[in-house]
Amino acid sequence: MQDISAYLSANANNMKKSVIRELLKLTNQPDIISFAGGLPAPETFPVEELREATDRAFRKYGDKMLQYGTTEGDNDLKAQIIAYESEQGVQLGMQNLLITSASQQALDMLPKLFLDPGDMVIAGRPTYVGAIQAIQSYQGKILGIPFSSANDGFDMVELEKRYQRARADRKRIKYIYVIPDFQNPSGICWSEEKRRALLEFAYRENLFIVEDAPYREIRFIGEPVPSIYQLDQHMENRGIVINLKTFSKILAPGTRIGWIIAREDIIQRLVIAKQAMDLCTNMLSQKLLAEFMATGRTRAVIERTCGIYREKRNFMLEKLEQYMPKRFDLTWTKPEGGLFLWISLPHFIDTDKMFYKAIEKKVAYVVGSAFYFDNPEHNAMRINFSYSSFEQIEEGVKRLASCIQEEIDAHDAGPRGQTLPEGV
Amino acid sequence: MQDISAYLSANANNMKKSVIRELLKLTNQPDIISFAGGLPAPETFPVEELREATDRAFRKYGDKMLQYGTTEGDNDLKAQIIAYESEQGVQLGMQNLLITSASQQALDMLPKLFLDPGDMVIAGRPTYVGAIQAIQSYQGKILGIPFSSANDGFDMVELEKRYQRARADRKRIKYIYVIPDFQNPSGICWSEEKRRALLEFAYRENLFIVEDAPYREIRFIGEPVPSIYQLDQHMENRGIVINLKTFSKILAPGTRIGWIIAREDIIQRLVIAKQAMDLCTNMLSQKLLAEFMATGRTRAVIERTCGIYREKRNFMLEKLEQYMPKRFDLTWTKPEGGLFLWISLPHFIDTDKMFYKAIEKKVAYVVGSAFYFDNPEHNAMRINFSYSSFEQIEEGVKRLASCIQEEIDAHDAGPRGQTLPEGV
Repeated sequence: MQDISAYLSANANNMKKSVIRELLKLTNQPDIISFAGGLPAPETFPVEELREATDRAFRKYGDKMLQYGTTEGDNDLKAQIIAYESEQGVQLGMQNLLITSASQQALDMLPKLFLDPGDMVIAGRPTYVGAIQAIQSYQGKILGIPFSSANDGFDMVELEKRYQRARADRKRIKYIYVIPDFQNPSGICWSEEKRRALLEFAYRENLFIVEDAPYREIRFIGEPVPSIYQLDQHMENRGIVINLKTFSKILAPGTRIGWIIAREDIIQRLVIAKQAMDLCTNMLSQKLLAEFMATGRTRAVIERTCGIYREKRNFMLEKLEQYMPKRFDLTWTKPEGGLFLWISLPHFIDTDKMFYKAIEKKVAYVVGSAFYFDNPEHNAMRINFSYSSFEQIEEGVKRLASCIQEEIDAHDAGPRGQTLPEGV
Repeated sequence: MQDISAYLSANANNMKKSVIRELLKLTNQPDIISFAGGLPAPETFPVEELREATDRAFRKYGDKMLQYGTTEGDNDLKAQIIAYESEQGVQLGMQNLLITSASQQALDMLPKLFLDPGDMVIAGRPTYVGAIQAIQSYQGKILGIPFSSANDGFDMVELEKRYQRARADRKRIKYIYVIPDFQNPSGICWSEEKRRALLEFAYRENLFIVEDAPYREIRFIGEPVPSIYQLDQHMENRGIVINLKTFSKILAPGTRIGWIIAREDIIQRLVIAKQAMDLCTNMLSQKLLAEFMATGRTRAVIERTCGIYREKRNFMLEKLEQYMPKRFDLTWTKPEGGLFLWISLPHFIDTDKMFYKAIEKKVAYVVGSAFYFDNPEHNAMRINFSYSSFEQIEEGVKRLASCIQEEIDAHDAGPRGQTLPEGV
C-alpha cells in the first residue's frame, strides 16, 4: 500500500488533530455531563421561525436559491447584515463585506492570505484552538501574550517586551489576532482602554488586527464596549481592523454562515482566495437567513438567548462558589457574556492528567493546555455553561469539585519533597 | 494607508483572479447570450421536491439540523450516498467518505494536503480552471499533458515523455488530476482502455490519482465507462484513487455539498485538514439532501436532467453544423455528457482578442487560454449548452459564427506576410 505520509506537504505535517475533538469522543457516553463542547443551547434556536423563513425563501426565490451565487455573497443577505451592523453603530458598505462559511473559514483564509512559513501572529495566551490550528496549517507561528491580572485584555508590558524580542530575533509579524468580547476560552472581555491601547500599538507598528467577534452580541450583563473595528473608525480610520462575525452563536451554527467586515482592498483579496476555496457560500443558508432577518426578529432572538445564558451562567457561578474547594489559587473568570468560563487551579494540578479521572466521575471539560500554541499551562480548564441543563450544571460542578478536591488531598498527603524539590 | 501588498504571503501573491469571473462581469448585460457560465439549467432543479424535503427535515430533526455537526459529515446523508454509489457499482463504507462544501473545497484541500511550493500535479492540457487556481494558491505547479487526437484521454506517449523529463529535472510529482467523464472544459470522456492505462502508470510510478467526477452521472448518450476508482477496486485495489463527487450538477449547486471517496487513511488526513478550514459542512443542506435522497427520486431527477441536456446538446451541435464556417481547422467536440463543448479554431484566431468583438455582437464564451496552467493555447473556446434556451442557442451560435467568419475574412484579406513571416 502506497504510504500517504511520504506524499504529504509540510502544511499537512504541521496540522494537529484537534485535542478537543479527540477528547470529545470520550464524552459521548450519555451519562457523562459534558462542559467540554462549545455548543450553543439548542433551545435558543428559533427552529420554527427558521423553518418558516426557509419555506418563504423557497417560494420567493425558487431556483435562484439552488443555483451558484457570487463569491462575495448574496446581496439580500449583505443588505440585511449592513442594516443589522448599523443598528450597533458599525457603518459599512457592500464593498466592505464578504460572506463566509462561518468564522472558521475566515480563520483559515487569513493565514493563507498573510502567512509564509515561520511568519508570526500575535495572539492571547490562551486563545481559540481553531485559530491556532488554522495558523499552524500554513506553518505560521504564534507570539503568545498573557492577559493582565485585571482580565481586561493583554498585559501590555508583556506585549511590548515579547514583540521587541521577536523583532530583535528578526521574526516577521503579520497581524494581531484577538477575541475581545468574551474570549474563547477565558470569557475575558477587553476594556475600552485596552482596545484603544492595542489599536495604538497596531498603528505604531503598522500591523493589521483580526478582531474575531463570534460572541459580541452574547452579552448578558453590563454595557457593550465599542469593538476595535468601531474604535478605528472613530480614531484614525486606517482600516487596519478585519472584523469576523458569525450566525453560529447568535442564531444557529448549522447554517454555517459568517461575515468579514474590512477595508475594500482586503475584501477583494479575500474574495480571490475564497474563489479557489469553495467558489461561493451556501445559497440556501444565505437566502433563508436574509428572509429571517427581514422579519426584524433577530435582536429579539438574541435577547432571549442572552436571558437563557445569563441564568445558566449565574447558576454555574453559584454552584462553583458552593462546591469548589476554597483556596487562593483556585479561581475562575466571571464572564459577562459568551459561552465559557476559565478555571485556574493550583499549580500542582495537571488538568490533562486529571481529565481521565473526571471522565471516570462522569464529567468532562476541555484541558487548558489545548489553547496554547507553545509552552502550555497545564493547571487550567475551559468549561461551558450554555449547553447543559440546570440539573446537569449542579451535578457536573459537584463532580468536578470532588475531582479537584481529590487532587488537592493527594498532593497534601504526598511527600513534601515531591512538590518542593528545592527542599529535598 | 497600510498597503496590504507588503503583508501578503507567497500563496496570496500566487493567487490568480479568475479570468472567467472577470469576463463574466462583461456578460451581465441582459441582451448578451452567454455560453460562458458553467451553470446547470435552473429548470432541472427539483425546487418543489427540495422545498418539501427541507420542510420535512426541519420537522424531523428540529434543532439538530441547526447545530454543529461532525467534520466527517452527517451520517444520514453518508448512508444515502453509500446506497446511491452502490447502485452504480461503487462499494464503500462510512470510513471512506467525507462530506465537503462541494467539489471546490475538495480541490482546495488536496493541494493543501499534498503540495509544497514547486511540487507538481499531472493534469490535462486544458483542464478545469478552479483546479488550476487551487493548486496555484499553494504554489503548486502543473505538468500539463495534451489529449490524444482520438479525444479518449491523455496522449500516453506525451505523458511518458513529459513525466520522464520532469523526473530528470528532479521535479517532485505528487498526484495526477483528471476529470475522466465529460471534462470541463473539453467535454472529453476517457475510454476504459485509457483509464486502465493511467491506472497502470500510477501503479508503476506510485502516484495518487484525483478523479474529479462532477459530471459522471450527466451522461445522455452511450453507456457509462467504469470510473478509475472502480477500476482500481477491480484491478489491484491499492486505494490510490481519490474520487470527488458533488450534488452541484446532478441536483442543485446552491446546496454546496459534495463528497470525497477514498481510502480510510486519506479520509482521516482530509478530516484533520477540514477541521481547521470550516469545522463542519452545512448541516441544513446535509439534512435536506438526506431527506430528499430518502424519497428514492434522485435517479429520476438526474434522468430528467440528462434528457433536457441531450436535447440542448443535440440542438447546439446541429446549429454549429449549420452556421459555422466549414474548414478542416475549425472543429468541436461532441460530448456524450456534461455541460460543455470545446471549439478549436484556426491557429490565427486568438479567442482572447476576439472576446471583446463577440461581446459587441452580444455573445459570450470562455477563452480557451483560461484552462492552461502555462503556455496557453489561444485558438480555442469553451461553450456551455446547459444553461441557454433553444432560441438563445440558435441565435448565439449564429452570432459566434459571424464573429469567427469575420476573423477568417480579415485574415484572408490581410497581407500574407503577416501570417507567414517566414515567407517575407
